[in-house]
Amino acid sequence: MTDSERRIPEATVARLPVYLRCLTELAEDRIPTISSERLADMAGVNAAKVRKDLSYLGSYGTRGVGYDVEFLLFQMSRELGLTQDWPVVIAGVGNLGQALANYGGFTDRGFPVGALVDVDPSKVGTSIAGVNVHHIDELPELVADKGIAIGVIATPAGAAQAAAERMVAAGITSILNFSPSVLSLDADVSVRKVDLAVELQILSFYRRRSDGAAAVGSSPLDA
Amino acid sequence: MTDSERRIPEATVARLPVYLRCLTELAEDRIPTISSERLADMAGVNAAKVRKDLSYLGSYGTRGVGYDVEFLLFQMSRELGLTQDWPVVIAGVGNLGQALANYGGFTDRGFPVGALVDVDPSKVGTSIAGVNVHHIDELPELVADKGIAIGVIATPAGAAQAAAERMVAAGITSILNFSPSVLSLDADVSVRKVDLAVELQILSFYRRRSDGAAAVGSSPLDA
Repeated sequence: MTDSERRIPEATVARLPVYLRCLTELAEDRIPTISSERLADMAGVNAAKVRKDLSYLGSYGTRGVGYDVEFLLFQMSRELGLTQDWPVVIAGVGNLGQALANYGGFTDRGFPVGALVDVDPSKVGTSIAGVNVHHIDELPELVADKGIAIGVIATPAGAAQAAAERMVAAGITSILNFSPSVLSLDADVSVRKVDLAVELQILSFYRRRSDGAAAVGSSPLDA
Repeated sequence: MTDSERRIPEATVARLPVYLRCLTELAEDRIPTISSERLADMAGVNAAKVRKDLSYLGSYGTRGVGYDVEFLLFQMSRELGLTQDWPVVIAGVGNLGQALANYGGFTDRGFPVGALVDVDPSKVGTSIAGVNVHHIDELPELVADKGIAIGVIATPAGAAQAAAERMVAAGITSILNFSPSVLSLDADVSVRKVDLAVELQILSFYRRRSDGAAAVGSSPLDA
């Protein structure tokens, strides 16, 4: 069974970047080993889940010692495909698109912004953070020339589906959708959706609870 | 046992906004009832989990009929505290802060941007999307005057902790952190972190897998 054949549950995949962030912090602090309990604390999950998740990567830790931080970090990075760069194209250079283009965190993490596209003639030909804005018609050439691996949709809701279809037609199979609209694409296209309001909704749940509880922000009491 | 005393697991809370989005779509399409299986499909979880999650809200559905969409939507909105507005303050009006201020999706969902704060004298006194930028020193008055419930950190990493502490000192107990830094705050402050690169890491996992698989973007094969 090779790496690419082993099946890793979607929920585990979604937690890998969280472990990655914890491990990066530990490595920066030069902490050599970590127990599943401590890693669970940092990641906000339970220890049994950490051990199960890491077992999918073939990591089992050493009893009484824990996991080797550097090795686990290497395994995690490799599994997440972070040992190479994946250039992205951002469609839509309004406020959000510009913010994403300027957001250094993508390049730092191996997702350099390779190209920007828009349909607005007043934006085409400008550049943001050193990256030129092209017309979306040029997408196929840009994908080929810049080795674009991932498309980021930062268009208004009404333009998202069309932009996504242009990306898929240009050979892009992984799409990150920041627009509030739901995309309808072939099943072989990986789509992740980021809804910036969801986290606020989660906070308002706890905020509302805290108004009714003795201590603000505390866990709701069991009856 | 009152609403505010019932304990709802964190993972369930995090799924409520997803159900909310699905139910909103169903209501828009005037679909009166929904089975747990269909809702599970839409939300991308399994049906048993949907039933369990909804049972925390006191919703059990009707055998052979399912859940009443409008009633479930009402329950969900109430539980998430969305039957009232929760004004937010955004700290840091760089590209990301400006994008968030202009992002209509917050206001639409009951989180109007009540105030913007920064420390840069060249930004203080300007306005974005009709909201004035104040100096962060004015935070306590702004929180009181505008009824600010939630603080959003959109500062550079190095300024995030200080901005969060100023928010907490001004009486804010719910913080949404868009900066890449980890905040260290009292346990009674609810903090959610949005890492814009995490979703790209998840996509690169599937992208890398698909390079090794027969069909691009397909599920990894079991051995």
